[in-house]
Amino acid sequence: MRMYDIIMKKRNGQELSEEEIRFFVEGYTRGQIPDYQVSALMMAIYFRKMTERETLSLTMAMVESGEMLDLSAIRGIKVDKHSTGGVGDKTSLALTPMVAACGIPVAKMSGRGLGHTGGTIDKLESFPGFTTALTKEQFIRNVNEIGIAIMGQTKDLAPADKKLYALRDVTATVDNMSLIASSIMSKKLAAGADAIILDVKTGSGAFMKAEKDAFALAEEMVRIGRNAGRYTAAVVSDMDQPLGYAVGNALEVEEAVETLKGNGPEDFLELCLTLGSYMLLAGGAARQEEEAREKLKKVIADGSALQKLAGFVEAQGGDPKAVYDTGLLPKAAIVEPVPAPIDGYVSHIECDEIGICSLLLGGGRETKESRIDLSVGIVLKKKTGDPVKAGEPLAYLHANDRQKAEAAKERFLKAYSFSDTPVQKVGLIKGIVE
Amino acid sequence: MRMYDIIMKKRNGQELSEEEIRFFVEGYTRGQIPDYQVSALMMAIYFRKMTERETLSLTMAMVESGEMLDLSAIRGIKVDKHSTGGVGDKTSLALTPMVAACGIPVAKMSGRGLGHTGGTIDKLESFPGFTTALTKEQFIRNVNEIGIAIMGQTKDLAPADKKLYALRDVTATVDNMSLIASSIMSKKLAAGADAIILDVKTGSGAFMKAEKDAFALAEEMVRIGRNAGRYTAAVVSDMDQPLGYAVGNALEVEEAVETLKGNGPEDFLELCLTLGSYMLLAGGAARQEEEAREKLKKVIADGSALQKLAGFVEAQGGDPKAVYDTGLLPKAAIVEPVPAPIDGYVSHIECDEIGICSLLLGGGRETKESRIDLSVGIVLKKKTGDPVKAGEPLAYLHANDRQKAEAAKERFLKAYSFSDTPVQKVGLIKGIVE
Repeated sequence: MRMYDIIMKKRNGQELSEEEIRFFVEGYTRGQIPDYQVSALMMAIYFRKMTERETLSLTMAMVESGEMLDLSAIRGIKVDKHSTGGVGDKTSLALTPMVAACGIPVAKMSGRGLGHTGGTIDKLESFPGFTTALTKEQFIRNVNEIGIAIMGQTKDLAPADKKLYALRDVTATVDNMSLIASSIMSKKLAAGADAIILDVKTGSGAFMKAEKDAFALAEEMVRIGRNAGRYTAAVVSDMDQPLGYAVGNALEVEEAVETLKGNGPEDFLELCLTLGSYMLLAGGAARQEEEAREKLKKVIADGSALQKLAGFVEAQGGDPKAVYDTGLLPKAAIVEPVPAPIDGYVSHIECDEIGICSLLLGGGRETKESRIDLSVGIVLKKKTGDPVKAGEPLAYLHANDRQKAEAAKERFLKAYSFSDTPVQKVGLIKGIVE
Repeated sequence: MRMYDIIMKKRNGQELSEEEIRFFVEGYTRGQIPDYQVSALMMAIYFRKMTERETLSLTMAMVESGEMLDLSAIRGIKVDKHSTGGVGDKTSLALTPMVAACGIPVAKMSGRGLGHTGGTIDKLESFPGFTTALTKEQFIRNVNEIGIAIMGQTKDLAPADKKLYALRDVTATVDNMSLIASSIMSKKLAAGADAIILDVKTGSGAFMKAEKDAFALAEEMVRIGRNAGRYTAAVVSDMDQPLGYAVGNALEVEEAVETLKGNGPEDFLELCLTLGSYMLLAGGAARQEEEAREKLKKVIADGSALQKLAGFVEAQGGDPKAVYDTGLLPKAAIVEPVPAPIDGYVSHIECDEIGICSLLLGGGRETKESRIDLSVGIVLKKKTGDPVKAGEPLAYLHANDRQKAEAAKERFLKAYSFSDTPVQKVGLIKGIVE
């Protein structure tokens, strides 16, 4: 078998066999096939696309390119959740304690943020002392004892995906549905959960701007998961404006904690209830969606979800007092309103621009090496459809640097559009793919 | 400027600017842009194609990536000729002495053969002692004194093309019209001739199997040449069967010499007269095609073309006696007929298979390092349209190894198809593009 023939076959629009896909993934991971042949193949795939069979073969070859996490020592059905990422997406922070409180073990690998998209690990580090550097033994013990553990992604998990993604990233071959789906799913499948619930974002703050693309990606991932023998479902949710009101690490932790105390924003709570229901159903903790939602609401009402969060933070070295008193979380020195320029209604928010404002304030990473300021960010006061009066705050910027605050403010204002006439609010849940 | 953006732009179907093309060609030649980005761009070009403007920019950037030959010390209008290659293509051997005898200086760079396509330099080495290792000074002096000099291609000529072609060759991105045309033309333009006459082959022994592709390539190359300010014309000629009757290095030299003596095969003579006329017209040695053809016929009839060949061979260290007595050329030990299997008419010859037979006999290079046997090859007796009787020789194989002869014979017979009813002979000249 020759890589040249594989490139030619794909270039000419023929379907690659499982054997051919495995040959190139293994050869590439081992360094036997050079980057320049793989990037040519990736571009050919960009133009010719991949069939369902090819996509599954690629995913499984990437899963098997490294270690697969063995979670069999954890009791019960392990349910993982993955979000395609967005602005103000603090879902894992509230959702995992909620489902754990309902008896679903959560054994999660998470990443750090890059660009305008935040990462769960960065957010959790707002709890002083919190660490994700667990051994596999600690990880499994914590899940069995507390119900939740979150670990950083290890290098050994789907190394082919890591290498392939890095190459695609510099050769303009990222945006192909099959390649995106197999990249996400290979990591999820290797991470060993029995069921996977996906949160696919769509809108101006999401990777998939168009709703139809988000549904296509959701369908592709659900197909892969099912074909790989894992229960998989996807929720397609709005990211045309930030989720909830808070954007920025400690600010988002505070909003997640408030949600577990019963004071959460309506959209964010709705997303947690929807994703949570599917997790409970997949894990066998409920039989009907309505029953699942009731259980989830109950663990908020009786404080057990909040307690779960505190236990989890403490087990990973963090100070659990901050869960009960968010005043102990990192705070920015400057809190500066952004006043509305005119009377009217918020008609649109260029959502990724809000993420970039948080980045400008110091709350995100421009490169993998950047250090981030956990305290800074934005708390929105007005979202799409809200009426505003000139001078009324659209948001408050939390900053530690006047110049950065000014730059962020200017950019923030450009991200908002207004209308004279009332504007319909957008629905959060766009649909379910299962 | 970033290579990533250039790949993305092309991938999305937008036209690249001259500046962008120059950026990537220069960066790649200098080793500042990695192979994997360039191969991704080549694949995007394969799918999106290039505009006329892009193709010219690419060609000129490759021309300027290295040294350009300065032929200004040669008196007169320098006319170069290039063939896209085929089986039994000994055109340069007869054509260059013919046009030189008519007063057109020929300063030519030639290559060696690879695969089933022979190279002019290999053929010329059939003259014992012949060498193409000339200094630039010798090269120019020989052209001025004798009218012909042929040199091996230097590494400094269009190095970007060399690097790019090697990459395309292993990433299945060779067959794009603009890339093929710019690759050929960059070398021709850098080689410094004032006018370029192209011989574009089509048929089963050519790189361009389909006539429409051959015309498209011819048009693309003529456009590039004209846009670069050089007179350029192309002859599209048949390669659906070998040119003339001889295939193999010394055998082809013999046929070329016979042609200069007035005993050449009709099709081969016709090609020399057609290409030669355009060279004479381009070089100002004739005003009308008819006048040019007469001049070319005259230098054959009066022996001056043959004398030119002898002078040229001698000036480059070869033994000129072999020009007058072809018995002095390398000879194979075995001459074996291939008898026709049935009565009928030759309906088709799978031309590249005949080239492969010569390769099997030892007359070609399988890899760049192979040593070739100059004496072996094939002399056809029957070509498409010819009537044959069972047992009558279709060809004679010239071999130095019985086993190789048997293998070549078997393969040769499979390359011929027969018909019960008469078959139309194919015309050699398919058209002219100027």
